[in-house]
Amino acid sequence: MGEEGVCHCEKVATLIIKSQTIPIYSKKYVRSCYLLPAKNGEEVTMQFLLEVVEILTSYVRKTFDRSTKVLDFHHPHQLLEGIEGFNLELSEHPESLEQILVDCRDTLKYGVRTGHPRFFNQLSTGLDIVGLAGEWLTSTANTNMFTYEIAPVFVLMEQLTLRKMREFIGWPNGEGDGIFSPGGAISNMYSVMVARYKFFPEVKTKGMAAAPRLVLFTSEHSHYSIKKASAALGFGTENLILLSTDEKGRVIPADLEAKVIMAKQKGYVPLFVNATAGTTVYGAFDPINEIADICEKYNIWLHVDGAWGGGLLMSRKHKHKLDGIHRANSVTWNPHKMMGVPLQCSAIMVRERGLLQGCNSMCAGYLFQPDKQYDVTYDTGDKAIQCGRHVDIFKFWLMWKAKGTVGFEQHIDKCLDLSAYLYSKIKNREGFEMVFSGEPQHTNVCFWYIPPSLRGMPDGTERRERLHKVAPKIKALMMESGTTMVGYQPQGDKVNFFRMVISNPAATQSDIDFLIDEIERLGHEL
Amino acid sequence: MGEEGVCHCEKVATLIIKSQTIPIYSKKYVRSCYLLPAKNGEEVTMQFLLEVVEILTSYVRKTFDRSTKVLDFHHPHQLLEGIEGFNLELSEHPESLEQILVDCRDTLKYGVRTGHPRFFNQLSTGLDIVGLAGEWLTSTANTNMFTYEIAPVFVLMEQLTLRKMREFIGWPNGEGDGIFSPGGAISNMYSVMVARYKFFPEVKTKGMAAAPRLVLFTSEHSHYSIKKASAALGFGTENLILLSTDEKGRVIPADLEAKVIMAKQKGYVPLFVNATAGTTVYGAFDPINEIADICEKYNIWLHVDGAWGGGLLMSRKHKHKLDGIHRANSVTWNPHKMMGVPLQCSAIMVRERGLLQGCNSMCAGYLFQPDKQYDVTYDTGDKAIQCGRHVDIFKFWLMWKAKGTVGFEQHIDKCLDLSAYLYSKIKNREGFEMVFSGEPQHTNVCFWYIPPSLRGMPDGTERRERLHKVAPKIKALMMESGTTMVGYQPQGDKVNFFRMVISNPAATQSDIDFLIDEIERLGHEL
Repeated sequence: MGEEGVCHCEKVATLIIKSQTIPIYSKKYVRSCYLLPAKNGEEVTMQFLLEVVEILTSYVRKTFDRSTKVLDFHHPHQLLEGIEGFNLELSEHPESLEQILVDCRDTLKYGVRTGHPRFFNQLSTGLDIVGLAGEWLTSTANTNMFTYEIAPVFVLMEQLTLRKMREFIGWPNGEGDGIFSPGGAISNMYSVMVARYKFFPEVKTKGMAAAPRLVLFTSEHSHYSIKKASAALGFGTENLILLSTDEKGRVIPADLEAKVIMAKQKGYVPLFVNATAGTTVYGAFDPINEIADICEKYNIWLHVDGAWGGGLLMSRKHKHKLDGIHRANSVTWNPHKMMGVPLQCSAIMVRERGLLQGCNSMCAGYLFQPDKQYDVTYDTGDKAIQCGRHVDIFKFWLMWKAKGTVGFEQHIDKCLDLSAYLYSKIKNREGFEMVFSGEPQHTNVCFWYIPPSLRGMPDGTERRERLHKVAPKIKALMMESGTTMVGYQPQGDKVNFFRMVISNPAATQSDIDFLIDEIERLGHEL
Repeated sequence: MGEEGVCHCEKVATLIIKSQTIPIYSKKYVRSCYLLPAKNGEEVTMQFLLEVVEILTSYVRKTFDRSTKVLDFHHPHQLLEGIEGFNLELSEHPESLEQILVDCRDTLKYGVRTGHPRFFNQLSTGLDIVGLAGEWLTSTANTNMFTYEIAPVFVLMEQLTLRKMREFIGWPNGEGDGIFSPGGAISNMYSVMVARYKFFPEVKTKGMAAAPRLVLFTSEHSHYSIKKASAALGFGTENLILLSTDEKGRVIPADLEAKVIMAKQKGYVPLFVNATAGTTVYGAFDPINEIADICEKYNIWLHVDGAWGGGLLMSRKHKHKLDGIHRANSVTWNPHKMMGVPLQCSAIMVRERGLLQGCNSMCAGYLFQPDKQYDVTYDTGDKAIQCGRHVDIFKFWLMWKAKGTVGFEQHIDKCLDLSAYLYSKIKNREGFEMVFSGEPQHTNVCFWYIPPSLRGMPDGTERRERLHKVAPKIKALMMESGTTMVGYQPQGDKVNFFRMVISNPAATQSDIDFLIDEIERLGHEL
């Protein structure tokens, strides 16, 4: 739209074509209505997209440059007030494409560089270039996974990749079923739904009233999505029984068996056990084989939440930590965590074919016509609780092509080596105290930093209270200086401690050294 | 990795930098391990990304070119066997970046151009250039919505955009709550969960056993996600009561009231009514005000599923079709449908603040620390049933900035005008028969094409059986010739008919004319 609300698209587009570039004086009048599909919109479109790419590649370059900050922190109210003209408010009238490019730059400027070599804040870190290219292509293709009809290549890629993942789980010939979902929480939710459908299929039509009182089991260290699923699906969080763990955060199998027996004595029906392969905070691997023995004995569904630890299946050196996973009835595995695939990329896999379909199918006539010209068993949408489903497979498939299985293995081994390095550096270092003893199982390294002012103090309420405040303070200083990011939290009776995790392919030993120094620098005076 | 499994990254990267381009002879040896964060990886990375962008922009250009096919159809077995060297199988060893680029080209080649001006197959069509740029930026930022800490800008954009959307709904000052979810089905699932939490909060902890027998109501024409939600959440599909509709597919309010009374007489508790604003097949708008009267009278939660029709709120001309939506307790609205935002982009909005949080919060200590340095009410993750959550807001926010409210309005009005044009062209045309009479409410135009061989035939089983096969046959021919795509399905006692929908900003009257001609051309001999 022109200044007076009149659209000059064609006139300006013609000018642009003639001059090959957008004359500066008119640039501020060029708005999105000049872009394709507008008539003569091709040049403006190409120029606009290339300018966007210039912004993005410059961001990518800086992300890997250690002299760049991880973030440029501002409080919510500061961003809302508008910093240096960055206005988040939406308005009635269009902005120029020039302004849109400024908005893109500002959005990146005030964000967090999750691919920075010193970003350790989340289980998902890093910026894989091939994965990024895969996401750019995915958004350009802009299609939907529900039918082969409109996503033929992606549907087949999903099928082949899931089979490959099931081979790593150890199911014969990679048989079984599965689907990519919008994240580990939804994948875990699927597992509970499918377990219920397997044992009490009538719940689908008659509701939970048709089943006896069902109970679920999971570690007290497990991810909160199991609890969310028990609330959402109508079990109730009180019917999720938490299992005790050993000092390293692993489920104690005897505790599971005792609690199963107790539940049965009360007349409840144990339905589902979740074993975690790589807990969120400690990175603990529950002993799957021993848990599977109990599940088989009492005929309980065994799910393995390998959202975080599943990737270790690709490492010949570390896959033993998931021994017994082939005995699971279902498995969650998020390539967007340990394997460095861009967000979102999570798979739920089910050993028995047909259950996902049986559990979720509603046979919508407008999507799943049986009279199509192709083999409609490739229409996977009716297995999902979603209707439309984002294409999460392509970036992962492309990364697998580009790295090969060996490339993922190298990445995983390297991350675990780095965390062993961190552990070895701090386990006996003055001012550091490990949260649990012994080498970590995954890349999670949990520790307290004890400032000099607390070092001589005897254990007790005062020390605990003061120590509880140390990690948040250091974290706040860290964010404000923008040099690195690492998470902290309390767990059980343990006051706030740092949880270091490494999934970032850009991280090196020097970044680990930097983190230690930075914690000491920021925390020394506390 | 080099030929013998040895990595030559540094050597080759140095060569590349020296020569400024990758020498052809060595290109096939350049693999993903040369990309950033590899040492000296910057040049290879930039070159690789620019080559990807070249592939993508060339695809974008062709997408809007009517001489390009919408798709190049192949059967699953053909693609699985590998066409012209396009190998979908994953392997142990890495491929060269050269091959990765070929894989990208092939993936697009055998896919479906959902942005093509003649792609009408789904409710989500089109390729918005600003939205595309937004998605490219989103994947480059590669972050997660759960906390302000790692997505400060995106979290604020979500908040401001949701408020704006609630203003269009008509809630005073845009007050209320909401969240973006991975699609309309999940948004609708949220609405049922929140309704249950509002009236029976104890279900969260105690499960469905703590509630009386709850029943839900929705149109027989409504989206199947309501049924999926009733199965998943433990209500049971039999406790979802289907409402009768008039000839145009709109719920008959008297039928709702009669069924509510009947349910109460049986001792059931009516919990939730879904009114659809834009049904999937007919595009019908349920009479929200009359339904709201009944919901208020019987104290039932009113949800409006505006996944498809919500966009009409932005059109001064068409928003009256959603009159009464401000009386809803919750609303689903998918900008990725009628508003042309790239997939995925769906919002669930709730009138009463605090319910989403109350319903879903589990207070995971490792994410939602209360002792952060910023205002943690901006950490929205605990409202969600997800943990990690993809950034779906940015592309939408950027499009809104670029188009302004007026731009969305123009787009919506144009699509509705086009569908009125289609309706006017075929309503009295020989060989076409409308599925329901009168002008469509949304852009859905439902019709049968009657081939000459059936035109004289009296209505009856034979005609019905033969007519049922016409749409699938034309669709198969259409896909094989690759010229256009439109959906078909049966509905109730109506045999297969075409459902034309227009949300594609690239479509013009000439494309509508083309579609009509193409159906006649392909169907004439049937």
